[in-house]
Amino acid sequence: MTLVEDFNAYRSRMNDKIFEQKNLTLNRFFNLDMHAYESGALDASTKELLGLVASMVLRCDDCIRYHLGKCYDVGITTAQIFEVFAIANLVGGSICIPHTRRALEYWEALHSQ
Amino acid sequence: MTLVEDFNAYRSRMNDKIFEQKNLTLNRFFNLDMHAYESGALDASTKELLGLVASMVLRCDDCIRYHLGKCYDVGITTAQIFEVFAIANLVGGSICIPHTRRALEYWEALHSQ
Amino acid sequence: MTLVEDFNAYRSRMNDKIFEQKNLTLNRFFNLDMHAYESGALDASTKELLGLVASMVLRCDDCIRYHLGKCYDVGITTAQIFEVFAIANLVGGSICIPHTRRALEYWEALHSQ
Amino acid sequence: MTLVEDFNAYRSRMNDKIFEQKNLTLNRFFNLDMHAYESGALDASTKELLGLVASMVLRCDDCIRYHLGKCYDVGITTAQIFEVFAIANLVGGSICIPHTRRALEYWEALHSQ
Amino acid sequence: MTLVEDFNAYRSRMNDKIFEQKNLTLNRFFNLDMHAYESGALDASTKELLGLVASMVLRCDDCIRYHLGKCYDVGITTAQIFEVFAIANLVGGSICIPHTRRALEYWEALHSQ
Amino acid sequence: MTLVEDFNAYRSRMNDKIFEQKNLTLNRFFNLDMHAYESGALDASTKELLGLVASMVLRCDDCIRYHLGKCYDVGITTAQIFEVFAIANLVGGSICIPHTRRALEYWEALHSQ
Repeated sequence: MTLVEDFNAYRSRMNDKIFEQKNLTLNRFFNLDMHAYESGALDASTKELLGLVASMVLRCDDCIRYHLGKCYDVGITTAQIFEVFAIANLVGGSICIPHTRRALEYWEALHSQ
Repeated sequence: MTLVEDFNAYRSRMNDKIFEQKNLTLNRFFNLDMHAYESGALDASTKELLGLVASMVLRCDDCIRYHLGKCYDVGITTAQIFEVFAIANLVGGSICIPHTRRALEYWEALHSQ
Repeated sequence: MTLVEDFNAYRSRMNDKIFEQKNLTLNRFFNLDMHAYESGALDASTKELLGLVASMVLRCDDCIRYHLGKCYDVGITTAQIFEVFAIANLVGGSICIPHTRRALEYWEALHSQ
Repeated sequence: MTLVEDFNAYRSRMNDKIFEQKNLTLNRFFNLDMHAYESGALDASTKELLGLVASMVLRCDDCIRYHLGKCYDVGITTAQIFEVFAIANLVGGSICIPHTRRALEYWEALHSQ
Repeated sequence: MTLVEDFNAYRSRMNDKIFEQKNLTLNRFFNLDMHAYESGALDASTKELLGLVASMVLRCDDCIRYHLGKCYDVGITTAQIFEVFAIANLVGGSICIPHTRRALEYWEALHSQ
Repeated sequence: MTLVEDFNAYRSRMNDKIFEQKNLTLNRFFNLDMHAYESGALDASTKELLGLVASMVLRCDDCIRYHLGKCYDVGITTAQIFEVFAIANLVGGSICIPHTRRALEYWEALHSQ
């Protein structure tokens, strides 16, 4: 399996297992999170960029991958992604650099599917 | 002095003192940070929203205030700001709630200058 | 006003202002957060201790105050609070010490209302 | 080797190597940490739940695994673990979701030893 | 009272109250922390610089003040302090800038006692 | 390939790809970061120790590896490295322990090249 398929498969499989436990608070939270990026006063593309930069400064590789996948789907360009990378690194510091390297690797994997 | 004037005055005064010490690395970093939010592949408004959400999930009240001021200057609406607040709280968790309260107080102060 | 009244008044006033903006995601998140500490497979007291230790290691003074207030209401003893402080400091490190000092000040304020 | 055995073996082997260096401060800190979860004003089970939620909001997979192992040993139920997961996700935000997925995988591995 | 006296007085008073509660784990941790900065394979000055940079990237104003006080006592120069500030800002990002402003204010207060 | 070669190869390859995108802000930031550890008011060895402790309390394994490599190159001893580990664990808490284990594994790998 590719990097992208691997990530999505594990994510789906474990999310299903979490939902099956029927913890009401956790399931509602997951549901709320899923709908938070829909178009509203800000469009969906902008919201995905917000999700991406937040994930980068908090340094969560899986969250970065998830939002990169969404950014790819809505047609964000590589130049735009790099401007998000730049702001994330300035705000969050050089501690974000290793995450930027892995983010770029995943961004390339999305384009070579 | 008002909340906004107070914040800006302290910020300017201490930034000046930092620059005067002529630490080349620090001064270049401040300079780089200042120019990172200029229009490019992403427009300046989007970049300010990115700066705001990053500041919220990292929970820095002063950084939040700075970006709220910039968002106000470029004409971001209250409905848009609240969509940033919503994403920040979902990604960063309820630990962001107290910062959201103080952010709203400052956002109101910006409108009553 | 006392430290406790002051904290509660500001919190209530700003929460009301947030709700009034009718951001659906944010209001649902606040609502979800409010109900997460009700008795279930774990009792309410244990959940407040979980909320307290999480707030301490994430170093949010306002969140610490909120959960200390709840812990006080459900009858947690000072010896128990100090065991939470101890675990928070060990897991989160000496960076939690200043928050521990302010937490104790607030805990004392709760007892002298 | 299984996931659980693998984790425990690496942990033991490297802890031994750390102790052998005889850094007094570090060894005392490790020792203090080991005893902090013993029964006192709060019972050992509650303390393990505190350790787990703190590890989740600070997003350390290895610390989560360690406390899940302890929770399993003292008889915490899956429903209780999920209430900890719920509080961790609400306090710490959706950035904790990937850690929740890996936590559940490890929790299942503990049951299938 | 001055900024420095104020900080030290509150710190001492609350530390005393914490010690009085006789939580063995917490008191041992405080004690361990106090001795960790003594000369060993690294000299005390270097260790204070390590404490300072760690406090800055973790963004704890009180911890920064404490280590600035110690750095002042052992004769660290302003140029050296600014090199720590520079590394802290690069590693930790622009989110450290407001803490740098307050750190400089305190550093100046230490010199005008 | 060994652990050390593997780390360096991935780092170099992805850094090159990042530079090729010619994002001015990001490239300047990387460049600034590279020069921040050169001798000045503090010598290069001390600065690497600062970079290491900052990386440890922020819990970034790749950043820790990078600075361990530099520390090895400038002749830092194992006893000195362990004093950095000790301060990192005290300031950052037991959440740093798993990173300490992996740091020691890499430190040993550097010596057996």
